[in-house]
Amino acid sequence: MALKIGRGASAPPFLVMDVIAAANARAAVLPPGAFADGLGILRMEVGQPGTGAPRGAAEAVVAALEAGAPMGYTEAFGLRSLRERISAHYAERYGAAVPAERIAVTVGASGAFPLAFLAAFDPGDAVAMAAPYYPPYVNILTALGMRPQILPCDAATRWQPTLAMLKALDPRPAGLILASPCNPAGTMLPAEEFIAIARWCEAEGVRLISDEIYHGLTYGTVEERSAAAHSSSAVVVNSFSKYFSMTGWRIGWLVLPEDLVRPVECLAQNLFINAPHVAQVAAEAAFACRPELEANIARYRRNRDALLAGLPAAGLDRLSPADGAFYLWADIGHLTNDSPEFCRRLLAEAGIAATPGVDFDAARGHRFLRLSYCGPEADMAAAPSRIARFLGR
Amino acid sequence: MALKIGRGASAPPFLVMDVIAAANARAAVLPPGAFADGLGILRMEVGQPGTGAPRGAAEAVVAALEAGAPMGYTEAFGLRSLRERISAHYAERYGAAVPAERIAVTVGASGAFPLAFLAAFDPGDAVAMAAPYYPPYVNILTALGMRPQILPCDAATRWQPTLAMLKALDPRPAGLILASPCNPAGTMLPAEEFIAIARWCEAEGVRLISDEIYHGLTYGTVEERSAAAHSSSAVVVNSFSKYFSMTGWRIGWLVLPEDLVRPVECLAQNLFINAPHVAQVAAEAAFACRPELEANIARYRRNRDALLAGLPAAGLDRLSPADGAFYLWADIGHLTNDSPEFCRRLLAEAGIAATPGVDFDAARGHRFLRLSYCGPEADMAAAPSRIARFLGR
Repeated sequence: MALKIGRGASAPPFLVMDVIAAANARAAVLPPGAFADGLGILRMEVGQPGTGAPRGAAEAVVAALEAGAPMGYTEAFGLRSLRERISAHYAERYGAAVPAERIAVTVGASGAFPLAFLAAFDPGDAVAMAAPYYPPYVNILTALGMRPQILPCDAATRWQPTLAMLKALDPRPAGLILASPCNPAGTMLPAEEFIAIARWCEAEGVRLISDEIYHGLTYGTVEERSAAAHSSSAVVVNSFSKYFSMTGWRIGWLVLPEDLVRPVECLAQNLFINAPHVAQVAAEAAFACRPELEANIARYRRNRDALLAGLPAAGLDRLSPADGAFYLWADIGHLTNDSPEFCRRLLAEAGIAATPGVDFDAARGHRFLRLSYCGPEADMAAAPSRIARFLGR
Repeated sequence: MALKIGRGASAPPFLVMDVIAAANARAAVLPPGAFADGLGILRMEVGQPGTGAPRGAAEAVVAALEAGAPMGYTEAFGLRSLRERISAHYAERYGAAVPAERIAVTVGASGAFPLAFLAAFDPGDAVAMAAPYYPPYVNILTALGMRPQILPCDAATRWQPTLAMLKALDPRPAGLILASPCNPAGTMLPAEEFIAIARWCEAEGVRLISDEIYHGLTYGTVEERSAAAHSSSAVVVNSFSKYFSMTGWRIGWLVLPEDLVRPVECLAQNLFINAPHVAQVAAEAAFACRPELEANIARYRRNRDALLAGLPAAGLDRLSPADGAFYLWADIGHLTNDSPEFCRRLLAEAGIAATPGVDFDAARGHRFLRLSYCGPEADMAAAPSRIARFLGR
């Protein structure tokens, strides 16, 4: 008898994974000297620093394992010492008093979202977010039976929602996801607008989920604020994957409002038990690796500057302001109406892997693409001339 | 304005976590020489091997980190080499042909359950399971809006469901969770009954979720079978936490039927990205550590034998047959009708931490407790005489 498949099974893939696979396949058969610049495939599709965990983090794990640490279960919210270190981070970076009791160490930001959504929302609830957006927001909410409510944004508002947009929503959504800096546009909310939205959410009973995974990766164009400093009801999601360059370790954290601490703890006990112990050890040590991490950011900044200087003359002149993260959101509507096909040709002909915008904005993504600039400097420096040749400039 | 909290937030805690905290607190203030046997608190509440990852697994991680492995994202289903090693494990151990394409490496068994449930079931669907049960089955299903359907089982059927019980269900549930060996009873389904149930599920369109996390930890009383060898529609859940002694690394796997491979891949991309890379490296190496792992099991067997020999005379004489895992399910109905209070006194007076049955069977658990015997041999050997004194024998 044919067995049923759940509606949750209709979650779309996270398409960037398929782009990565196509880039790997192309790289595997690329003849030597295929490109005049002597480089191989330029990987601009991945949201992953090319660097690994900072050296001190890896060394802490090596030392613990060599000492025979059993790396058993931790408490559901993680090692006390790590939670206290994260608490201190809020005092140092934002001047915010966030007690360790409100910090939950999670299996990456990915593992944090289902906990936050299940604790804060019910099936059927609407949760608003800007488009373009990080695709798993929509896919996780949908898998859990909640309703993503898309707010189309554009260059006029830095691809971010505004307080005016939110006030116009009737009925109010149950929640709002903000990401500043955001993926894919790399843009930020101006500080005063961020604070105004956080306060409005609290006053109006809209649960704010503030995705701060790209905090620390900003370039001075907009002031960075944490919802932890401006709201007592917001949930903050963060991760060691980006600033701390620890993607594959799967470790992140939540700052929880008082009313969600115990509910999320119970959910975490059941859904995750705890974040990987070995990654918790690495994460705690990573806080002591600032010089290495700041050197990574200096590299992203040089990559960013090279692209902002070179891409417009190469034919990509409609770029998001690169406030943070390591992404550019490029409007290619003057070049194509089919970004997946454009990206296929860009990979095949110019050897550049980029992510078509359809993953991030179902309605308008066919005329956008996302470029990631966390790769090697030589590759990023070579990208504009390859694109210029590809576009016949 | 007060913010709403989702229904998912009503997930009950996984109570054993609270027992662990109480045992830690008691251990912290225990005076030296508190017990005549010279030992401290006997930890019989935890489902966690006292040993860490096998030495070769830890060494593989040390070597990879010292070589500068960046430990970035892997494919959502994990490293190809690990999936192939798990595939070979099915050939070696069960004589079953399970291609690597059907294996998904997950964030522990805990991370595997939401993927399996979301892919196979819809909100409102009934999913049957024996009581007593592993509490997160109920808590995860409930958080996802599905309906646990409890089948009360007892010593007459080894605390396991029977084909006759399933045939009597009208309407048929959408799914069935089997666990053999199971937690908390440590019992197994006879091989012929296991196979008959797997075939019946397939024929009747009931999705079988076979939790095989305690496979490899069996003591020869009942033959161990994997659903992967007897069903093309079942989902198999397994983990590196128990046999491989890698609890805190958070790594497990799914064997998926063909129809759920792509749906689960899409869900995993969105919900987890991938299992911890560092744990994947450790897990692959753990397969080469059989002698160390078999030595662990020999110790569990000695612990098991010591308890089965000593507990009946000490006053706990209604024990589940100890087929596998490292648990005994003790009927204490002749001693108390309040197992939480009994466990509190057992900890306070006898220095033994045990888990009250209410966590595993809401209806009948007040007259049961679970004893775990994966701890140190000296502690397990001392347990019967402490219990005898506590019970006035």
